[in-house]
Amino acid sequence: MSSNYRNFRNNVPWLILFLEAVFIVLFYFLFSHGDESRSMVSYPAFQDVNHMVIFGFGFFLTFLKRYGFSSTAFNLLIVVLGVQCSVLIEGLFYFLLEIPHEDGVKRITKAAVSITAVVISTGAVLGKTNPVQLILMTVVEIMVFHMSRWINRMYLQVPDHIGMMHVHLFGAYFGLAVSSCFSEPSPRSEKNASTPKSALLSMLGTLFLWVFWPSFNSVLSVDEKWKVTHNTYFALAVSAVTAFMLSAMTTKDGKFRMAHIHSAVLAGGVAVGYTADRIQYPWIAMILGLLASVITVLGSYCLQRCLNPALEIHDSSGVHFTFGFPAVLGALAQVVLLVAENGTFLTSLGYSVMFHIGAFCVTISIALITGLITG
Amino acid sequence: MSSNYRNFRNNVPWLILFLEAVFIVLFYFLFSHGDESRSMVSYPAFQDVNHMVIFGFGFFLTFLKRYGFSSTAFNLLIVVLGVQCSVLIEGLFYFLLEIPHEDGVKRITKAAVSITAVVISTGAVLGKTNPVQLILMTVVEIMVFHMSRWINRMYLQVPDHIGMMHVHLFGAYFGLAVSSCFSEPSPRSEKNASTPKSALLSMLGTLFLWVFWPSFNSVLSVDEKWKVTHNTYFALAVSAVTAFMLSAMTTKDGKFRMAHIHSAVLAGGVAVGYTADRIQYPWIAMILGLLASVITVLGSYCLQRCLNPALEIHDSSGVHFTFGFPAVLGALAQVVLLVAENGTFLTSLGYSVMFHIGAFCVTISIALITGLITG
Amino acid sequence: MSSNYRNFRNNVPWLILFLEAVFIVLFYFLFSHGDESRSMVSYPAFQDVNHMVIFGFGFFLTFLKRYGFSSTAFNLLIVVLGVQCSVLIEGLFYFLLEIPHEDGVKRITKAAVSITAVVISTGAVLGKTNPVQLILMTVVEIMVFHMSRWINRMYLQVPDHIGMMHVHLFGAYFGLAVSSCFSEPSPRSEKNASTPKSALLSMLGTLFLWVFWPSFNSVLSVDEKWKVTHNTYFALAVSAVTAFMLSAMTTKDGKFRMAHIHSAVLAGGVAVGYTADRIQYPWIAMILGLLASVITVLGSYCLQRCLNPALEIHDSSGVHFTFGFPAVLGALAQVVLLVAENGTFLTSLGYSVMFHIGAFCVTISIALITGLITG
Repeated sequence: MSSNYRNFRNNVPWLILFLEAVFIVLFYFLFSHGDESRSMVSYPAFQDVNHMVIFGFGFFLTFLKRYGFSSTAFNLLIVVLGVQCSVLIEGLFYFLLEIPHEDGVKRITKAAVSITAVVISTGAVLGKTNPVQLILMTVVEIMVFHMSRWINRMYLQVPDHIGMMHVHLFGAYFGLAVSSCFSEPSPRSEKNASTPKSALLSMLGTLFLWVFWPSFNSVLSVDEKWKVTHNTYFALAVSAVTAFMLSAMTTKDGKFRMAHIHSAVLAGGVAVGYTADRIQYPWIAMILGLLASVITVLGSYCLQRCLNPALEIHDSSGVHFTFGFPAVLGALAQVVLLVAENGTFLTSLGYSVMFHIGAFCVTISIALITGLITG
Repeated sequence: MSSNYRNFRNNVPWLILFLEAVFIVLFYFLFSHGDESRSMVSYPAFQDVNHMVIFGFGFFLTFLKRYGFSSTAFNLLIVVLGVQCSVLIEGLFYFLLEIPHEDGVKRITKAAVSITAVVISTGAVLGKTNPVQLILMTVVEIMVFHMSRWINRMYLQVPDHIGMMHVHLFGAYFGLAVSSCFSEPSPRSEKNASTPKSALLSMLGTLFLWVFWPSFNSVLSVDEKWKVTHNTYFALAVSAVTAFMLSAMTTKDGKFRMAHIHSAVLAGGVAVGYTADRIQYPWIAMILGLLASVITVLGSYCLQRCLNPALEIHDSSGVHFTFGFPAVLGALAQVVLLVAENGTFLTSLGYSVMFHIGAFCVTISIALITGLITG
Repeated sequence: MSSNYRNFRNNVPWLILFLEAVFIVLFYFLFSHGDESRSMVSYPAFQDVNHMVIFGFGFFLTFLKRYGFSSTAFNLLIVVLGVQCSVLIEGLFYFLLEIPHEDGVKRITKAAVSITAVVISTGAVLGKTNPVQLILMTVVEIMVFHMSRWINRMYLQVPDHIGMMHVHLFGAYFGLAVSSCFSEPSPRSEKNASTPKSALLSMLGTLFLWVFWPSFNSVLSVDEKWKVTHNTYFALAVSAVTAFMLSAMTTKDGKFRMAHIHSAVLAGGVAVGYTADRIQYPWIAMILGLLASVITVLGSYCLQRCLNPALEIHDSSGVHFTFGFPAVLGALAQVVLLVAENGTFLTSLGYSVMFHIGAFCVTISIALITGLITG
């Protein structure tokens, strides 16, 4: 605990106070309550997403021994700061572009979905950052994410609810880029140990995410909500089955390993996010769930053995294979499905691919700059 | 750990892979998304049932010390396999009988309700089976349950949402029959010990079940959803009160005993399931809840002292008195209510009674065969 | 454990049995199911409140080491007894005043909201009372709360959904009054110790309350449900941010302290309850959340240092500053807002202020009498 560290600590309350003051002043200028009676987003659906962000991710990250309380509490702090920040940035965009405001329900729901990117990034840097860095990362990441979303929407004609599904991709790679700027902690340090109790809490978080994922994918889709839910449910189910299967297959004694299940169970939901409103048959969603789960478990093997030591990336919660890989797969599946559906609209395909590369570059570059600033 | 056991272990992934492949192929032939905009089942109600099956039963069964993680994880595996299996079997029945398909929402919701039977049976055999046996039991039980439901529906004119309420009866007695085929573990083995921490988690599961039980009972009822919820709520409330009362009465020092509360709190919900759409006055539901709770606590006394040692049944989680007895009481209450309402339709009474005996026989016989196969 | 104590213990089941019998008999005379198809309260909203009362408060109070299981279980017992009692008293009022009955949904929802008062009071006396005293306190408090609500409604024209929001104020001061009649336990007794595990469970309870608070505030509001939810969400968000800020500021090493966050995170939701349907701009709700949080943390400082030793009040869970202070602030904000909106209706202002003083006096006086009886 150097004096440097203590200075950081002492800055936390002032940083938070400053941010909150800015938020309230901006809210004063930007928002009033509109007519919210005919909102597209239903209250229970919003509540599900809220639930998922607070509980699911809060407990998903408790698996490190020392981060039981602090990860749940930090998660809450990051979510509430991020949601306010996200609502403001969205409001500023609408104000600058002179588009009429959306209703309050949709506004908060979109903010709650966007914050997922930050929470996933947090998973990658957990145990290596101090609170000041986490808070700055939250604000910067939310801004960059909204920027990339608006670039996609304005120049690449990506519909808003699909653009929103890039949270996983963005969150995972932003987190990895930030993480690569920090020195790797010693592998035997206590900070990375997990206990049976924390493993159970983490399982609780995973279950929360699993149960609410269909709500998460369907909350912003304009129509065909039920098709989205249905596809997501089956993708998640197959992905859970595959996770158990692969876990038993890859361990020597045939027992299920917590870590595999923890990450692979959700892969199907992430992968199916982009395409859930276009898939006509449940079996396609099921195969996507299967592939996503396989990629995740194989990815966790390859990354931990070869890639990470080579690239010197330390990824505390494995967000690279948990959210990054399935999201890449989902984006690929989107392209494949587009090709299968209509081979003629090649331009839109090109756009879609271009967009992903664009989002990728923006993410990595900004993330590195942020990492250097906060590091 | 004999080599026999290790072989079983090694078969787990292949068995799961085989099942999943069969499921995907059958889904390919059977299902496409229909028009799901005017579904009878609302999304929040489905989400409640999903929540209850994953969390409620997942944590309900964590009270054995060694089964913290594994019971929650296994529960997820069994639920996802069972739901897919259940959707398929229901789809096959509709296909073979040439009835038009139901919408996807109702399909998954019915599958989630059916899987309760399997989860209850799992409670009876917990700590005595290996994963292969559990998975096989899941598939067989789901098939048999749907068969018995269709027999009731086709030949005995039982309405579908009432037939569905037999899950508790079926699950409890199927589980007991399977359990009786296994040798009883040594009474002082570590596997049956419970810790304060696991007891708290189990209480969490019980609370989840308690909170979501009204949703469970009302989700499939065609109309009068609120009457069902209302009756279930009051039955559960009285049953919780009675559980505390009896628990304090039967222990020497007047303290509440976890185990009694654990099982008796839910008895009212189980018992009122069959008749919740017919009960006109809350006080009837309340008396039913009271009786169910009394029967459960007395049952747990009698069974553990006299019956179980005599019949050599070992019932790890006490599903016999937790779900079996209240379900029998509920079925009786259904008959009594029918007689009180209209004494003339004696034939339907006869059918109802016949049906129960039929379901009973089918259950026990198939369960014994399954037990011998998997044993 | 004196024989006196054992006698108390032995009375518990008979007391519960007696209460339950009275409830069933009264239900028999008072209630039947009406037409509940066009209820104002939606089922998911009711389920959220139910969830919050059972889980949120159940785990909120587990932070004392010895009260893990017993507080969750007692909470369930108190809630189910209180809800039945509350439905009955409300029914009696309607019967005596010859007003047509409300539908069943609204009836249970109102009962679930009322019971919050009792649960908050329980927090103040936790660790000092035996079950008999708690049960008697439940019944008496529910009666007195409904009495005070009806006085407000009949003589002071307070709308019902605003009158309902007085639960926090009523609960906190009733609890404190009862608590002051008991001798303070020795400060180093084991009963007040908390462990990291119980702290995490308590955090879980706080998160539950945080997530469901918008539902709680909006469930009974007649229209503008979304405005209420929206305002509550922002008030809670700012109040969470402020809680973290103040916690880091007031501790020496700049770390977040559990206890501060635990209590201050919810302050915004309590304070905004009275005025959420009138606030036109989110920034007002945000400032209210900020102030509520500041008052709570400062209050916890002042009370624990100066006031409590002077007044000899021992407040186990800090309900005075967690619920009491923000509720007072909310009531003040209501008055300020009324003045800001329309300076002419001074009479209604007078009523409002009068009402608070009235409710206060009633609460304290009855609470003292109860405390003496049960003490």
